[in-house]
Amino acid sequence: MKVAVIGATGLVGKKIIEVLDQRKFPVTELNLFASEKSLGEKVLFQEKEIEIGILSAIDFSKFDLAFFAVDDKISKEYIPKAQKHCIVIDKSQAFRLDKDVPLVVPEVNPFACLKHKNLIASPNCSTIQLVVVIAPLRKLAKINYVTVTSLQSVSGAGSFALEQLQYEIEKIAVGETEKPESTPLLQPIGANLIPQIGEFGKDGYTSEERKIILETRKILNEPEFPISATCVRVPVFVGHCQVVDITFDRKVTVAEVQKALTKAPGIKVYTDGQYPMPIDVLDKDDVFVGRIRHHLSDEQRISLWIVADNLRKGAATNAVQIAELVLKQ
Amino acid sequence: MKVAVIGATGLVGKKIIEVLDQRKFPVTELNLFASEKSLGEKVLFQEKEIEIGILSAIDFSKFDLAFFAVDDKISKEYIPKAQKHCIVIDKSQAFRLDKDVPLVVPEVNPFACLKHKNLIASPNCSTIQLVVVIAPLRKLAKINYVTVTSLQSVSGAGSFALEQLQYEIEKIAVGETEKPESTPLLQPIGANLIPQIGEFGKDGYTSEERKIILETRKILNEPEFPISATCVRVPVFVGHCQVVDITFDRKVTVAEVQKALTKAPGIKVYTDGQYPMPIDVLDKDDVFVGRIRHHLSDEQRISLWIVADNLRKGAATNAVQIAELVLKQ
Repeated sequence: MKVAVIGATGLVGKKIIEVLDQRKFPVTELNLFASEKSLGEKVLFQEKEIEIGILSAIDFSKFDLAFFAVDDKISKEYIPKAQKHCIVIDKSQAFRLDKDVPLVVPEVNPFACLKHKNLIASPNCSTIQLVVVIAPLRKLAKINYVTVTSLQSVSGAGSFALEQLQYEIEKIAVGETEKPESTPLLQPIGANLIPQIGEFGKDGYTSEERKIILETRKILNEPEFPISATCVRVPVFVGHCQVVDITFDRKVTVAEVQKALTKAPGIKVYTDGQYPMPIDVLDKDDVFVGRIRHHLSDEQRISLWIVADNLRKGAATNAVQIAELVLKQ
Repeated sequence: MKVAVIGATGLVGKKIIEVLDQRKFPVTELNLFASEKSLGEKVLFQEKEIEIGILSAIDFSKFDLAFFAVDDKISKEYIPKAQKHCIVIDKSQAFRLDKDVPLVVPEVNPFACLKHKNLIASPNCSTIQLVVVIAPLRKLAKINYVTVTSLQSVSGAGSFALEQLQYEIEKIAVGETEKPESTPLLQPIGANLIPQIGEFGKDGYTSEERKIILETRKILNEPEFPISATCVRVPVFVGHCQVVDITFDRKVTVAEVQKALTKAPGIKVYTDGQYPMPIDVLDKDDVFVGRIRHHLSDEQRISLWIVADNLRKGAATNAVQIAELVLKQ
């Protein structure tokens, strides 16, 4: 397959190139594109150096498959052109909620790939790790409610946010307490927590929280799925964590939940006082679950703790898995 | 009043001395005690140097009031002796759930101070900031359920934990990724999250989570109050944050909740896209609330975000407020 990666020098673009190689995706020709800032850069793929091309000069008729790992604006501009010629897998949120664009997590709704108009969207990082866990639990018993507190690493906001955290850590290390004035994350993040990811809507929810709610509903094909979310940016480089409370419509046992998750694809379950943390999941493709327990007040309620590498399963790996699905079909 | 502070060189002990001064508590004589490690140290209080005495040599008959800011073991050993002679306010968890020991948050259950046997306990830091907010909302409407995700700074684990975070930050600043082997927090905390505070019980809850649940029930005087908690240690020096989801037994408006909290003692409410963060609350005595909003799926459910300085309102300030109450009575 002749493959193009658009946004090849960004955090997610780089990971896509890595994952294509690691998963032995049948690439016959890899073409990499980015904005003019990256002109002249070269990237190593399977022992060959590939020069970065400029976005504005792409001829999409030369490719079978294009991964878009760019922002909404660029996706909106280029994807309509691209999908005339090749299959597009888009990481941005530009088309995720469009009715005729499948939004796919291969462990959850692979069948959604069967019908597409050359464009398939990959969900938001925080949505992906959540639905991978919710989907098998929904088969166990009807779910009456889900609340999620999503503790998100700075890499979810791109490479400038990573630089902000590193810069602030260097200041804290030497005892400088002055906070940066203008920052990609809008607030200081070093030794701080920011309860805002994205812009606020009139209802008080941030765009990130709305993504979790609306994308989960679309992927589960349940437009009224009862879920609420709070997203907090945390001073972690890579790895999103989620505290999830699930209310079922019957009593469930912890053993049932553990068994359902252990059998489900793409999940690794921790038990017996063990739990995953961000430092454990770097460059891993599974979704990690621990701290599965009953509420003390209500045996229909379960709490659990989810961790995943937001750049891998939360982005690049999910996109490549979608490509694998399309290839099979 | 002749006042003693036991544990005067610890994080909370130091803050108690600071708060006694700032709140102009009527101290006629301040006596400071710590373990033998602190022998010879001196502390400045109201422009006088006070020498630290050794714990094992205390004569409690010389004091009217003693603040204990030590661990459970030392509290258990010394408080039974102390309460024969003076009023004791204890920050440890040693006696918090004892039937004849009041557990007091002055904004919530000041009347509990009226009857005591010379011993009043101050709750866990994470419990205090939570009940200050829940109590006025419980007057607004019956609460059917509370879930809290408590994001707790390392200062809650004492000065060695603060040193661990600083040490790890210094390593990350220079690009060293090796993790410390033996640490006060048991796991690496620099650029990481640890979903364990305290020891695990058989039910899968940590001791910190059980504290929130059981202490909240005692303070609210509702033994079956429906609440669940997940506690996560975060790489923040000072300031605990909580994501709280509350289900009422009727629809409530965001305006009602804002109004109830604005009128309640000890709370500062943020609205209109503003919110508190750990870096905002250092050395402040209020409990800060923001991000008050309805769940999109259910108008009986409200989410909100609580932040407080865990060493001040979560510990020292609450203890001194209890002393003020006792003094009034």
